[in-house]
Order: sequence, then structure tokens, then C-alpha cells
Amino acid sequence: MKAYFDHGATTPIDPEVLKAMTPFLKQRFGNAASLHKLGREASEAVENSREAIAKFIGAKPEEIVFTSGGTESNNFAIKGIAFAKKKGHLIVSKIEHDCVLNSARWLEKQGFEVTYLSVDDEGFVSPEELRKAIQDDTFLVSVMHANNEIGTIQPLKEISKVCREKGVLLHSDACQSLTKVSVNIDDLGVDLMTINSHKIYGPKGVGALYIRKGVKIDPYFSGGGHENGKRSGTLNVPGIIGFGKSVQINHKVGHVKKLRNIFMKGVEKRISDVKLNGPRGDKRLANNANYSFKYIEGEGLLFRLDSHGIAVSTASACASNTLEPSHVLTSIGLPHEIAHGAIRFTFGKDNTLQEVEYVLDKLEKEVKELRKMSPYKRGWK
Amino acid sequence: MKAYFDHGATTPIDPEVLKAMTPFLKQRFGNAASLHKLGREASEAVENSREAIAKFIGAKPEEIVFTSGGTESNNFAIKGIAFAKKKGHLIVSKIEHDCVLNSARWLEKQGFEVTYLSVDDEGFVSPEELRKAIQDDTFLVSVMHANNEIGTIQPLKEISKVCREKGVLLHSDACQSLTKVSVNIDDLGVDLMTINSHKIYGPKGVGALYIRKGVKIDPYFSGGGHENGKRSGTLNVPGIIGFGKSVQINHKVGHVKKLRNIFMKGVEKRISDVKLNGPRGDKRLANNANYSFKYIEGEGLLFRLDSHGIAVSTASACASNTLEPSHVLTSIGLPHEIAHGAIRFTFGKDNTLQEVEYVLDKLEKEVKELRKMSPYKRGWK
Repeated sequence: MKAYFDHGATTPIDPEVLKAMTPFLKQRFGNAASLHKLGREASEAVENSREAIAKFIGAKPEEIVFTSGGTESNNFAIKGIAFAKKKGHLIVSKIEHDCVLNSARWLEKQGFEVTYLSVDDEGFVSPEELRKAIQDDTFLVSVMHANNEIGTIQPLKEISKVCREKGVLLHSDACQSLTKVSVNIDDLGVDLMTINSHKIYGPKGVGALYIRKGVKIDPYFSGGGHENGKRSGTLNVPGIIGFGKSVQINHKVGHVKKLRNIFMKGVEKRISDVKLNGPRGDKRLANNANYSFKYIEGEGLLFRLDSHGIAVSTASACASNTLEPSHVLTSIGLPHEIAHGAIRFTFGKDNTLQEVEYVLDKLEKEVKELRKMSPYKRGWK
Repeated sequence: MKAYFDHGATTPIDPEVLKAMTPFLKQRFGNAASLHKLGREASEAVENSREAIAKFIGAKPEEIVFTSGGTESNNFAIKGIAFAKKKGHLIVSKIEHDCVLNSARWLEKQGFEVTYLSVDDEGFVSPEELRKAIQDDTFLVSVMHANNEIGTIQPLKEISKVCREKGVLLHSDACQSLTKVSVNIDDLGVDLMTINSHKIYGPKGVGALYIRKGVKIDPYFSGGGHENGKRSGTLNVPGIIGFGKSVQINHKVGHVKKLRNIFMKGVEKRISDVKLNGPRGDKRLANNANYSFKYIEGEGLLFRLDSHGIAVSTASACASNTLEPSHVLTSIGLPHEIAHGAIRFTFGKDNTLQEVEYVLDKLEKEVKELRKMSPYKRGWK
């Protein structure tokens, strides 16, 4: 049996999405910037996709700029706003994705000032702490909508109120939350928002940045002036078509949440010494469960599950190749040993109850066996 | 009948390429950074692709960094080297692609100094002029391998000699030349080289930057540390697989050249008052013909050919939406009226002799009709 519980890392392309893309991978191959019929057809299809995505998040089509994915969008948002402002201070939370954190760190090297805002033990940013951190020269706050590792959904509305009071722009990385909870830009009160395709059953290599009309941003890709001068480069037409379709399919959020809840109950009933990382209830992404299994290394457990055809993740996929414990888990106060014992399970629309029962069985068995061998077992607690 | 003569703008994905990509658009959807089997399989496929591309240009696999395309690679190369150097002077030719020129202009705003090197009336950079332009603080020269509009193949070897003598890095945009002429990095003597996929029958949204081992470059995408820390962001696995395959298919360069030559003979025999833009012979890309049809506007002619199902381009596709004459054509000394009358025909491996005869017929007819109506006809020459 195979069971994929790593939808937070990437998702399979939905067959409907691939079907929509296919003509653009074949006969409709035009460059969307070409003036001839093949080019105009590509451009029209791109604009339809832009409209679908804009509508889905409550934006205007001209506020959507297509990019190569979440990392580009986050770099674009943060560096683009910074270069438009030329100097000053920005605030990011400590549990942002590496591409936000490292964009901020890069800007520090260029002379900008950055505050890395702490979070509580469930990963929440405090709007009041944020208010205190805002300076006269603060121009941007970047707080992700939902965390990629522990599923914490931030109180963006309250964060936005503080930002607006203070006249500071708010950017949010919504790669993990898109299609799982509402990401209406006016409800959330964001000025810039990163979204991408491959986390929502669309193709890899395509994303977008929502930029509220009137927000001044320096283009990140200099070039031929595509995307109204905001992002140069030949448009990835099939990717964009797939992305547009991916917001329109049935994401079965209720089904996903139900399976995730059954899984959580099972883990907590059947396995001792586990710690849920991140919050419970509606403030947690419906597809995410993240547990530390005390006395064992997450990576060892990952490979044992893998041998049963079960795909999970330790930290985020992006950081899988490092031995450092996840910055998200250390930021919520986990000691290194507990952070190293964490496994992320992220559920998807095509998972089944049978798969959940399968993973519970294997998980119980493998945790037990690993703990038998664990050198930590005695010294810990 | 339909006839596509705009392969310089983009190419259809070759069926063999799409076939290689398909498993990765379907069941092999893993994130190449994931540690589980699905992830490792994706990563292995990516590395095979990297090897194929490296081999094709005579590089080591670790010198290839995958990007989202030519525009990103050119931004990465130029801004990345500049930020690694922190200050100084760079040189780009006046007929570079907009993404090189505008990256240089952007760097000027950040305090770097830039020389825009003139070219001769066929578009050639003079190595001797380059030598004179190099200053003590020059750190980078960027000269494209072959021009996207007029097909001029630059004397990169000679340019490289000058750069090496002076201890200056050489970057070249080889998006148009890849698979048309040899692009061996040691023969050309480049330190960085931009290549991409969608000009060579691969998918859109993927490219690479060759970075010679030891060259210090600032990453352009900050983030999770993919691509050995040089380019963060989830890898576009299907795109990369397609790109890898696209260097391995038969590009039929001899066939393309033969058709292009038949076309050129036909144009020059059957249509009066035409001017070939760019050089003749081996110093011109084998797939490119660019003619100014005096007394008429290129755009009008483009739309007339389009009505016959013939796809061509005025300037580069990237600049199609502007009314400015091509900077390439004005840089080789064309007056605005002649530059505006230019049409680029770029041939591909699947074009046929019949298509060439078809475009010649329609071209002769439409040029004649447009000239009858031309208000310029009398005043010009």
C-alpha cells in the first residue's frame, strides 16, 4: 500500500487541472507576448486564468502578477517593497518560511533594519507585540497566513488593523492556506499576498503575487516588461492555465479535516509520549498534524514509514536536507530533542480512511520499535 | 494552411520531450527536496537532467543551477555577480535582451556604473572596443552569444580573451544559440551562461544558469537553500525533465538552415526594396532571417501574414507590445522608419519546404498591397 501524507510539501496535479493544461503543452504553444493568433490565444487563456485566481481571493485581475512560485513571490514582495522604499525597517515573524526570513536577512546586509517577531508556544503572532515593534520608519510587516509546519493560522485581521492604524503595508504568505480556509484579501486586510500552485493540485513552477492597487513595488525581474512591467519573462502559459484551474476544483476540505481528526485521535490514543506541535481547533489548518514522538529522531521514523510506502515530512520539505532543527519548532519553544522528533502529516483530498488506518498501524509499530532502541529513552522526560 | 515562423519567440514542446515529462506531471509528482521515495525519485530525475544539460555545454553538473527561465538567469547572473562584488563597473552590449539591459539599468540605480557598448552595423561587438571600455573596477562583461532579433553570433572567443587578460568575468546569454551552434563553455570561454528550455522545444518556465566553479555569486532567490544554496524554491521537476530531454532531441540544424536559405533567396529575388538586418553567412544564426520591408510598417505586415495562418514577429516577442522601435535595430544604425518595417522569421525543425513556399507567396502579395497604400512610399528612400 502507498499513502501520501505530505501534501504540505507538494500535491499531485489534479486530472482536471492537467486536462486544462494539456492543449497548452501541445498545439496551443504560443508565446503570450506574440502578436499573432497563437500568441493572442495564449494571452487570452492567461487572462482567463488571472481572472479566476483574482476572483478566488477577491482581487482585481490587474492586482495579480504571475511568478515562478512561492519563493519568487515572497522575494518579490519583500525585496520589491524594500527597494521601492529605499531604506527603513521591516518586521517578519520568526516562523516565516525560509524564503521570507532569508529575504529579510539579505535586506539587512543591504542596510535595512529587520525585527524578527517572536511567537507564542502555539506559533501565534501577538498583534499587541507587533504594535510595539512598529517604528516610525517601518514600511512592511510580513506574517504568513498559516504556518507550513505546524498549521497555525495567524490572526491576520487583527494584525492588519494594527498595520493600517500605523500606516504600514502588510504582506502575507498564503501558500499553505489557499483553498483550505478563506483567503479573501479584503477580509484578511493584506496589501500583498503570496500564493502558489503546486500546493493546491496545480503544477510546479508557477505562483502569483497579489499586489493591492496603488502599492508601489520595485519589479524583481528586470526585462521585457511583461505583467504590466511588474514581472518580466516569458509567461509559463501551461503552468498559469493549470494554476487557474486548480483554484476551481473541489478541494474536499471537510473530508480532509475529518481524516486528519481521525488520525489525531488515533495517534493520541494509541501512542504514548507524543506532543502535538501547534494549536488545536479552528486556528489550525485542517490538513495539518505535526507530532513530536519523544525519545526518537523524526528522520529515522520518516524512513521507516517510507519503507511502508508512507510519505511524510520532518520539517518543511525545503529544509529536509539540513541537520538543524526546524526554526519553527525552536521558535515555539521546543527543546532540540523534541524538535528533532517531529513529523508533519499533511492530508489531501484523495486520501482515504483506509490509508489513515494504515498509517496509524505502521506508526504505532515503528514508534514502539524505535523507542526500544533509543539511547535517549532513559535520560529524557 | 498554417505556418509557424516564430521559433525565436517560442517553440512547441517536442513530443519526445512531453513524453519524458508526462510521468512527472502524473504519478511521479514528488517534491525533489522531500526525503521519502517519491522525493528521492524526483531528485534523481532532476540530477539526470542536470547531467544531460551539463554534458551538452561541456560543464560539470554542479555548475548548472536551474531557474524559471532566461529572464531569471540573466537577472541572477548580472545582479548576483554585482551584489557579490558590492560595487564597481560592468559592461553590456547595446543589443542585449531587455532583461540584461534592464538588470544593468537597475544596478545603475543601486550605485553601480555601467557601460553600454556599441555594436557595428551588423550587430557585432568589437573585442578591441571592449578592451578600451574595461576599467580598473570592471568586474563583469555581458555579451549575448547570438542576438534574438538579427541572429548575429558574437566573437565570444575573442571577447573572452580580452576579459581573461583583464581579469573580468564574462557572462553570455545563449538562449537563442543553444542547439543551433556549439555552446561549449570552454570553447567560448564564458564564466556564466544563460540557457533556457522553451526556445529549444522544451517547456516554458524553466531555464538554467551555468556558473563556472569558483565564481562568487550572490543567490538571487533567498530561501530554503535549494540548488546548493544558489537558487531557492521548489524545483519545477517536470519542467527540468523536459529541459533535459530537449537538449537530446534532433534539432535538424541542417534542414533549418536549408529552409532559411531558400527563404532568403526567395525574398531577395521576389521582393524589391528589402534590407537584411544582421550579417550573412556563418556569423548569423541558421534559423534567423530579419528583413526590413521599406515603405511599410512591420506590424501591419505581421497581421496580414497572421490572417493567412503565418506566425512571425516584429521585434522580439518580449517587446511586441511597445510602439518603440527595436533597440537592436536602432543600435545597428537603422533609421526609425526602416526599423519599424522589420519582420523576424525564425525557422524550426518541423517547418517544411511547402511552408516556405507558402510564406514567400503571401509575403510577396501582402508587401505589394501594403506598399500600394503606403503614405511613405513617395517621401522615402
